[in-house]
Amino acid sequence: MATGWGSLLQDEQQLEELARQAVDRALAEGVLLRTSQEPSSSDVSFILMHRIPSVNGSQFSFPLLMAILVVSYAPFTLFPSLVPSALLEQAYAVQMDFNLLVDAVSQNAAFLEQTLSSTIKRDNFTAHLFDIHKQVLKEGIAQTVFLGLNRSDYMFQRNADGSAALKQIEINTISASFGGLASRTPAVHRHVLNVLGKTKEAAKILSNNPSKGLAMGIAKAWELYGSANARVLLIAQEKERNIFDQRAIENELLARNIHVIRRKFEDVSEKGSLDQDRRLFMDDQEVAVVYFRDGYMPSHYSLQNWGARLLLERSCAVKCPDIATQLAGTKKVQQELSRSGMLEVLLPGQPEAVARLRATFAGLYSLDMGEEGDQAITEAIAAPSCFVLKPQREGGENPNKNMVLSQEVRILEWLVDTGV
Amino acid sequence: MATGWGSLLQDEQQLEELARQAVDRALAEGVLLRTSQEPSSSDVSFILMHRIPSVNGSQFSFPLLMAILVVSYAPFTLFPSLVPSALLEQAYAVQMDFNLLVDAVSQNAAFLEQTLSSTIKRDNFTAHLFDIHKQVLKEGIAQTVFLGLNRSDYMFQRNADGSAALKQIEINTISASFGGLASRTPAVHRHVLNVLGKTKEAAKILSNNPSKGLAMGIAKAWELYGSANARVLLIAQEKERNIFDQRAIENELLARNIHVIRRKFEDVSEKGSLDQDRRLFMDDQEVAVVYFRDGYMPSHYSLQNWGARLLLERSCAVKCPDIATQLAGTKKVQQELSRSGMLEVLLPGQPEAVARLRATFAGLYSLDMGEEGDQAITEAIAAPSCFVLKPQREGGENPNKNMVLSQEVRILEWLVDTGV
Repeated sequence: MATGWGSLLQDEQQLEELARQAVDRALAEGVLLRTSQEPSSSDVSFILMHRIPSVNGSQFSFPLLMAILVVSYAPFTLFPSLVPSALLEQAYAVQMDFNLLVDAVSQNAAFLEQTLSSTIKRDNFTAHLFDIHKQVLKEGIAQTVFLGLNRSDYMFQRNADGSAALKQIEINTISASFGGLASRTPAVHRHVLNVLGKTKEAAKILSNNPSKGLAMGIAKAWELYGSANARVLLIAQEKERNIFDQRAIENELLARNIHVIRRKFEDVSEKGSLDQDRRLFMDDQEVAVVYFRDGYMPSHYSLQNWGARLLLERSCAVKCPDIATQLAGTKKVQQELSRSGMLEVLLPGQPEAVARLRATFAGLYSLDMGEEGDQAITEAIAAPSCFVLKPQREGGENPNKNMVLSQEVRILEWLVDTGV
Repeated sequence: MATGWGSLLQDEQQLEELARQAVDRALAEGVLLRTSQEPSSSDVSFILMHRIPSVNGSQFSFPLLMAILVVSYAPFTLFPSLVPSALLEQAYAVQMDFNLLVDAVSQNAAFLEQTLSSTIKRDNFTAHLFDIHKQVLKEGIAQTVFLGLNRSDYMFQRNADGSAALKQIEINTISASFGGLASRTPAVHRHVLNVLGKTKEAAKILSNNPSKGLAMGIAKAWELYGSANARVLLIAQEKERNIFDQRAIENELLARNIHVIRRKFEDVSEKGSLDQDRRLFMDDQEVAVVYFRDGYMPSHYSLQNWGARLLLERSCAVKCPDIATQLAGTKKVQQELSRSGMLEVLLPGQPEAVARLRATFAGLYSLDMGEEGDQAITEAIAAPSCFVLKPQREGGENPNKNMVLSQEVRILEWLVDTGV
């Protein structure tokens, strides 16, 4: 058996056997995607009633599941990637700063309006979101608890001296995904290394359970809402290939006896309602938390769906995220945050947080036609692809105001090649 | 939400939602089968080499898995089945007796020869197995350690007074399956009950980890073989839909740093060999234990495969099972064991074990044409289908002779309707 990494990568037969092992382990661990042929489970045409006599003599019917519902594994790298521990620690340390920053932006209506004023004129999607934001503010916000599950994506920047620096690419403030599947990838990578006899290296792979961290955030919001029978409403897409990522969080909530109901925007239009106190009901069940895993792209909205979104935003259910937090995650806002002096305005009296944040700024470049865009493209070609990491962060309330709940800081074991 | 079971079974919409939840949980827990369209993973045409710059500036290639390999869930019941605890305890208690009985039969060449003499004349498959058995005995058995992983299947018999009795249907002495998948079904059934708000009932579902028990047996045999670098050879079918059941055991072994190589009989023919001490080698790797998950049906054998089986049986690797143990599991032997006085002959001086065994005998009936067969069929129609349970048993060496390793007694959560 090869012991060096170099020879390993030359041995195609061994790589294929490793891949077979890794794929089967990923499947067994639930690192799954629905296949595109059959993305919905709505055709579980399963119920074959069997009548069998029970021990005490009465007939008992039970449904036997027989449908073929096919899934495959989510793409993953065969090997884990090395992450300098200093950069991992840095990512952990700065995540609370990012969460407080997102919260500050989302609560700053004047900043959002000024920053997005030009975007709104050209971009219907942002304009629609902003319109709802304004309506909700005008009516008066019904819920003072806000839930943010934010994911920061990072690259390593190679410095001239060969050292590496952590650079944030973007922050996702709505429907940040892969926390569920990432909870199960360490077992896959440990398996690969153990097959190679690299047991010491396998033991060094950190465990990672962002699905638990995400669920803890939702559970805290549910608890603060304060109604024992209320549900978590997960706004889902009908054809969701990444459902197992979401199910991992649902399962964690169910283990805490918090029930999740999955519904589409269309279902909200048809069966959602507010009572006189703006409490949200779906199918006569009170909703404590609305968790959006849909609604982050223009294609997700029909006119009907915009109506459903407005209904949800007006409600006193805790939104994850509320529409202002979604707007705080737009590229235009992130670009604005990198302007000189802006962090100091948004986070007054917090110079250490500002310094930690600014150290991770990579700069956001316009790729518009024109001189600025040309220069950005030239630079990108000169220094191409990088690792992109996705840390997440968990728990913790903002002691100053309302609540910021966010994900555990983790380097998810996913590599994305951003090369040109 | 319905709280009674009766109303639950009437609510089709709720049953469908439950089924969707159960299916997704089963998939996420690894209760998987390969789909029949794509039963082999040999077409993992995955290796898309990516070149990305590493942190220290050198180029690093890594394979990115991209193939679509589809799986589905193994059929399961939506609800767990009630098992009277007395019968479960009885099944646990009698399993060591069954294992000792199987061991006694397998070591009793005269009994096997006499019992199977008529079968061999009519049945080519048994004749082939028996022929190998004779050859191995004649040459002299190279390995005195035997590994048995036996699965007893039970029904509940409803007595006239309404009580239930545990009746054994058969014992599987080769390639007993579903220990791996059954390790993951309790989580699915707990999920279903938790969704229904039946948290107390969910908490009562016993945990079950037969894959660990099976692996412990194989690990013990590997340890007794006594060669740190030797492998476990799993004889597998090429198109194995139930591979995840096997992978669960492989994973448990890998966690103990015991490596499993999966090969077909054909591979053994081509690349298997014995050295002068009859040590078995596959691809130049020494084999400590041969674990058969193939070779239990006539269709599994070409002439070439019979040659491979002979090679394996002649070797000093521990066989799971050896061919005598496979013969001990034939229907004809099980029928013979139910004859009056036979248990006493095979297990002399063990009247308690004999009594425990006999209490579970349901009687094996000939379905041949003729008076005996007619009567059996008439009785079967008068008292039709029953629950079939599959208990398994783990660990423990026979203190008297050689070694009997067997599976943990478990009632697997699978129901089979044996009704007419």
